[in-house]
Amino acid sequence: MIVTPVDLEFDQPLALARGGQLERYQLRYETYGRLNADASNAVLICHALSGDHHAAGLHHPDDKKPGWWDHYIGPGKAIDSDKFFIVSLNNLGGCAGSTGPTSLNPQTGQQWGPDFPDLTVPDWVNAQARLADHLGIDCWAAVVGGSLGGMQALQWSIQLPQRIRHCVVIAAAPKLSTQNIAFNEIARQAIQRDPDYFNGHYQAQGTLPAGGLGLARMVGHVTYLSDQGLGSKFGRQRQADDQDLFQIESYLRYQAEQFTQRFDANTYILMTKALDWFDPAGAQPLDQVLAQAECHFHVISFSSDWRFSPERSVEIVDALIKAEQGVSYTCVETDHGHDGFLLPNEHYQASLGAYMNWIEVS
Amino acid sequence: MIVTPVDLEFDQPLALARGGQLERYQLRYETYGRLNADASNAVLICHALSGDHHAAGLHHPDDKKPGWWDHYIGPGKAIDSDKFFIVSLNNLGGCAGSTGPTSLNPQTGQQWGPDFPDLTVPDWVNAQARLADHLGIDCWAAVVGGSLGGMQALQWSIQLPQRIRHCVVIAAAPKLSTQNIAFNEIARQAIQRDPDYFNGHYQAQGTLPAGGLGLARMVGHVTYLSDQGLGSKFGRQRQADDQDLFQIESYLRYQAEQFTQRFDANTYILMTKALDWFDPAGAQPLDQVLAQAECHFHVISFSSDWRFSPERSVEIVDALIKAEQGVSYTCVETDHGHDGFLLPNEHYQASLGAYMNWIEVS
Repeated sequence: MIVTPVDLEFDQPLALARGGQLERYQLRYETYGRLNADASNAVLICHALSGDHHAAGLHHPDDKKPGWWDHYIGPGKAIDSDKFFIVSLNNLGGCAGSTGPTSLNPQTGQQWGPDFPDLTVPDWVNAQARLADHLGIDCWAAVVGGSLGGMQALQWSIQLPQRIRHCVVIAAAPKLSTQNIAFNEIARQAIQRDPDYFNGHYQAQGTLPAGGLGLARMVGHVTYLSDQGLGSKFGRQRQADDQDLFQIESYLRYQAEQFTQRFDANTYILMTKALDWFDPAGAQPLDQVLAQAECHFHVISFSSDWRFSPERSVEIVDALIKAEQGVSYTCVETDHGHDGFLLPNEHYQASLGAYMNWIEVS
Repeated sequence: MIVTPVDLEFDQPLALARGGQLERYQLRYETYGRLNADASNAVLICHALSGDHHAAGLHHPDDKKPGWWDHYIGPGKAIDSDKFFIVSLNNLGGCAGSTGPTSLNPQTGQQWGPDFPDLTVPDWVNAQARLADHLGIDCWAAVVGGSLGGMQALQWSIQLPQRIRHCVVIAAAPKLSTQNIAFNEIARQAIQRDPDYFNGHYQAQGTLPAGGLGLARMVGHVTYLSDQGLGSKFGRQRQADDQDLFQIESYLRYQAEQFTQRFDANTYILMTKALDWFDPAGAQPLDQVLAQAECHFHVISFSSDWRFSPERSVEIVDALIKAEQGVSYTCVETDHGHDGFLLPNEHYQASLGAYMNWIEVS
């Protein structure tokens, strides 16, 4: 499946939940499958912290890697592009083509950098709704996402209940725990303490806070994996060429290096803040807020995920039951931790596939 | 209880497990209680990663805080200084008075810094044995420690089995898991990526890698606490003077700042390496190695400790049972995580106190 991303300009101002507005912005997205006549088969894919629009297929026949969720999206796959018209975008504030901190601020002619306005999950839902408007989609057959993407799906069900028929919330939580916030803060501190960060104005200085961003990624990476999974993969094995170096040490350094080549530090800070602030229920009970939803829900968690543990998914499921909403739930047995939501797994595929298959389109 | 630390010089070379030797070195230690006539009441306290010799009592009547384990050491306490002669030292390689990276290298007249030789848990046992020799202690009534201190206690039972009658291993593991090593590596990377680290020669440059050491501490700190404990203490509360700042963020920054004022970065790296390398069984089954021990064991774990979980303590207990050694075991119910081993808890106190009370002294 060869796909080509599309850049779409929006020139109507977008008011933002934490204040201010974006006068103009661009969203980069790609689609898989065809929209049917009554636009009843559209599925929105929402990405996680460091994800992007490229969820499936290849951009070029000689690409070495397909999109990040290619195992689950495509012809005949769990999210079947023969049945659905699947839309995947880089969120506003991202660094993969949509307007974000690395874009030029039209008022200054310089990169926005740290001055890019704060974004929240509700803002993303609004931006995604405008993309739906453009594509002629009044109501999504389903909004689907993992981790921060699952939070966007959940937010859709509350914020724009008439525009979503099915909500698939994977490896998410109704809001971050203190420990979650603590790990995000460590990541931010790692970036902000890097002398090459220059309070976010590193581009103007011709530098990159690669050391700090790499550290942030290491912290994230370890918390996305399980103790058991790390043990099975690396154990206490040493590097062949350095008996003093554990393989896990070398692996983390490599992962950090790779990440800093593809991701922007200000964007990382923006995304972790959006995660921290996500709290759709606020002071209200979650079930009362979810009572507004008009869609059916499918919730999936992963047994060894300790960043967003199965208990956090069960909080969502229990609130939905209390709100008398329709909900199905699967906890997938895996030792891949939070990363399980990205990886091939038969049970996961069966659960997601069966649910998507059950969705009616005309 | 007012105590005064003692500095003791050793001028016999100490050969080190990873090569090289220390020609001369100093150990700083303090003692609580009195050694009895046949020296049968001596207890060695081994400290953890960032601990020191000051385990109990006050150095000055106006000290605001007592030693780090004062709740459990003293007259009438779980480790009773009316019964025992308790010895607590700063380990070799430390930064609280014993010879370590911040000491002068006699060959250069400069701080050792990163050139201080690698140390391991077996080296600490050897150094502690020399301190025992000096104090006239042929055999410890007990060696007691938590976390990295528990690993030293375990190592004593294997390395010098005739010199220890009771071994108390608290919140420890028979060796680090991959995840444990990963978190230690992140801490080291945080320090080493700080431009003020200068490959460890920061003292010569008149700098301190405070940013990196603070980050290392934040990572450690979060992993020593439980998700539940953090949630109970901080939840999602904001700072009174900054509604954008979660209290946990402010708390972590404060903890980092405090730590960098009292701890040395090269020492932190040395200590985490000793943790990573600890592996008394190596390629052998743990029970075969523990079969060499001649002491009785007491093992304590903490229910919400995920850095060294109860399962890791049970590995030790199961190996001891298989080796037909005497062992008792308590898992203390707490939401304080790994830090539980330092904090007041009735069940913990009862378990430790009952065991120490059961030890016979003449």
